[in-house]
Amino acid sequence: MLPRVSTTDADRKHVFHSWSAQAQISPPEISRAQGSHFWTADGTKYLDFSSQLVNVNIGYQHPKLVAAIQEQAGRLLTVSPAYANDVRSEAARLIAELAPGDLDSVFFTNGGAEATENAMRMARLHTGRQKVLTTYRSYHGATAGAISATGEPRRWPSEPSVPGIVHFWGPYLYRSAFHATTEAEECTRALQHLRDTIMVEGASTIAAIMLETVVGTNGVLVPPDRYLAGVREICDEHGIVFIADEVMAGFGRCGEWFAIDRWGVTPDLICFAKGVNSGYVPLGGVVISAAIAATFADRPYPGGLTYSGHPLACASAVASIGIFKEEGVLEHVRGVEETILRPGLEEIAARHPSVGEVRGVGFMYAVELVRSRESREPLVPFNASGPAAAPMGAFAAACREQGLWPFVHFNRTHVVPPCTTTAAEMREGLEKLDAALTVADGYCRD
Amino acid sequence: MLPRVSTTDADRKHVFHSWSAQAQISPPEISRAQGSHFWTADGTKYLDFSSQLVNVNIGYQHPKLVAAIQEQAGRLLTVSPAYANDVRSEAARLIAELAPGDLDSVFFTNGGAEATENAMRMARLHTGRQKVLTTYRSYHGATAGAISATGEPRRWPSEPSVPGIVHFWGPYLYRSAFHATTEAEECTRALQHLRDTIMVEGASTIAAIMLETVVGTNGVLVPPDRYLAGVREICDEHGIVFIADEVMAGFGRCGEWFAIDRWGVTPDLICFAKGVNSGYVPLGGVVISAAIAATFADRPYPGGLTYSGHPLACASAVASIGIFKEEGVLEHVRGVEETILRPGLEEIAARHPSVGEVRGVGFMYAVELVRSRESREPLVPFNASGPAAAPMGAFAAACREQGLWPFVHFNRTHVVPPCTTTAAEMREGLEKLDAALTVADGYCRD
Repeated sequence: MLPRVSTTDADRKHVFHSWSAQAQISPPEISRAQGSHFWTADGTKYLDFSSQLVNVNIGYQHPKLVAAIQEQAGRLLTVSPAYANDVRSEAARLIAELAPGDLDSVFFTNGGAEATENAMRMARLHTGRQKVLTTYRSYHGATAGAISATGEPRRWPSEPSVPGIVHFWGPYLYRSAFHATTEAEECTRALQHLRDTIMVEGASTIAAIMLETVVGTNGVLVPPDRYLAGVREICDEHGIVFIADEVMAGFGRCGEWFAIDRWGVTPDLICFAKGVNSGYVPLGGVVISAAIAATFADRPYPGGLTYSGHPLACASAVASIGIFKEEGVLEHVRGVEETILRPGLEEIAARHPSVGEVRGVGFMYAVELVRSRESREPLVPFNASGPAAAPMGAFAAACREQGLWPFVHFNRTHVVPPCTTTAAEMREGLEKLDAALTVADGYCRD
Repeated sequence: MLPRVSTTDADRKHVFHSWSAQAQISPPEISRAQGSHFWTADGTKYLDFSSQLVNVNIGYQHPKLVAAIQEQAGRLLTVSPAYANDVRSEAARLIAELAPGDLDSVFFTNGGAEATENAMRMARLHTGRQKVLTTYRSYHGATAGAISATGEPRRWPSEPSVPGIVHFWGPYLYRSAFHATTEAEECTRALQHLRDTIMVEGASTIAAIMLETVVGTNGVLVPPDRYLAGVREICDEHGIVFIADEVMAGFGRCGEWFAIDRWGVTPDLICFAKGVNSGYVPLGGVVISAAIAATFADRPYPGGLTYSGHPLACASAVASIGIFKEEGVLEHVRGVEETILRPGLEEIAARHPSVGEVRGVGFMYAVELVRSRESREPLVPFNASGPAAAPMGAFAAACREQGLWPFVHFNRTHVVPPCTTTAAEMREGLEKLDAALTVADGYCRD
């Protein structure tokens, strides 16, 4: 099974990488990983504050999850979606049990993009309407429908978009689109903006509002307390489907099974992937309300995929949910957030002039870096690349030099380690982050 | 790990199935599978002539492939696309080695839909043009871009389509769109129709022509000998990218690594999934020509997904390709096709008035059923459902009663067993098919 040519050589010759200029990258080789750490091929050990695209919530190579996958591989790897299968049924039952309200059916996909694509399809057919409202500063995947829904620069090269997507502004107090100065004001104004957008777009044309419950890659934008309840009310008022995209925020990342539980709100559809099984086997899906499922009781649902409800993937979800419960992963996240992560980041923020804001929930935090706290000018411009992005590159290099692997996007670093990261590891990571931020401070105007 | 409630109960309550009216289905439970057979929960054994949506080319639970997956699960399950990884590199190297011409780079996806989505994106950005031409009677997946490219009824409920898709007619002599009477005439006229379509759409607006090399679910439409070479010429003439969708036809299904090898033609992009690892772990991808890869050497490719190049999936592809080579699966397919499958189906066709035509290549055959050989009226109408589809339902039931699981679509049954199906199993399956066709004969007009 070992390659006959070097991994790096074959990679550079034959692997076409996501979101990259192929000649300008030198992907480091990961040869091993365990728990909260991975090792590159040169033997360097990294504490992972990125979770591989906020994916391995359970950590790397969790022994029980590995064993469950190996066991299912020996039992039955794959059957098509047309059949019933024990682990498929059990994964659906468990996820439905965890989901709020009457979200009792699960449509399985391979990943997050197919989840948002299918959620939008369900909403359109359920309502008989065409438009889907999503926010700027959102990411919903990279297939044609999902990238159209996306509200950030990764959409641009794939335009023109799918018909019927409308972008609006969500709450983000630190850079308020509504000139608000308090969280309560941001909430009120963001809801008013949404109402106004619906007014001018026409409520009767709008199938769905799709939101990342907590906006992920685009900034860990935690909604103000009343915002999601407000969106729910607006949806109810106009017969609009509320889609919560929890591909990144779900399954422990925010200290809850579903992030939206934090606000006690029940959407109509929840999209999931990543944390459901930590991506150990590709898996995503949509949890569906009783009313929307009923739309497709006697009318065929026009969507599907060969690997929907893949037994190996479903078995890994069943096992992962079991491990989360046995090991109290949600409680662990909330405890470490409360005692170490949040206070640690607040201390760091106080010490570094480059830290404009720290925000987050669970093990999903952002540290937003600025040239000046007063002007809030970002440390690097929006969507910067090349030399313009150098300050963030220098900061990331300073992390890696200490053995900390950071998640970096635009002018932010996100603290998104595995949900099983121990208290000691979290402290260690924060210390290294602290040291690396000195490099960022060097770019401040004052 | 065993479910606490019955698989069927949980399935009916919680699993939302692909392409189905949820209240009108009773999915049989598959509890076990090995080689060419699967067992339903009541203990009934079926010889599988469907390969689970033409997916398990290597058969079920191949011991060496199971072992390779278990081994990789113990080594390293997942890393993000930003890294190099030994099995990812090796899978890409092997696939590039098998692919024709200078198709040397591989972009990995989770499945076929993401493969066609990304192939279209690559073609659009490479050419700077927007339109993609695909055929009626094609299936390319169910995300927004892929379903828009699809040329059959599964597209209809998801319209309006993505901008820029144009459908044209491909070759299908038995129901010629061009009133042709010979294969050579069908080929010439189909190419002329494609040229005419390009003329009126405008060559300078067309990024790609995407074809299933052998049309799969929509009829096992094998292109006439000169057709694909003709498409290649047309593409070269106009700077259009030729995308071969081999999600179903590739990796042994047509007795070749890539079906297009049968005609010695090199496309610019090949989409694959299914047979690459028999769907044991969700995996798909695009094999990319040097020229198109070069477009993204210094310009970022704007597409990606968390599970691109998933190590567990890539390890299973590496192992599967190795097993295909060791066990001579391609040679096996060609041998059994030549000596048993093709002659067997020809004999069956001669005996049954309901058989209008038998056609195919490798282990990918269609038996097209008609009310009358003379009129060629299909046994059931195009896209029939409910009572109108009853004759095909009765035929399928007659297969299942004998322990043969058929693939049925519209007025056809496809013979698409695992590529490892033995000569004896193939004979057994053909005998059962023969017997079941007597039921179809009963619906003939004469």
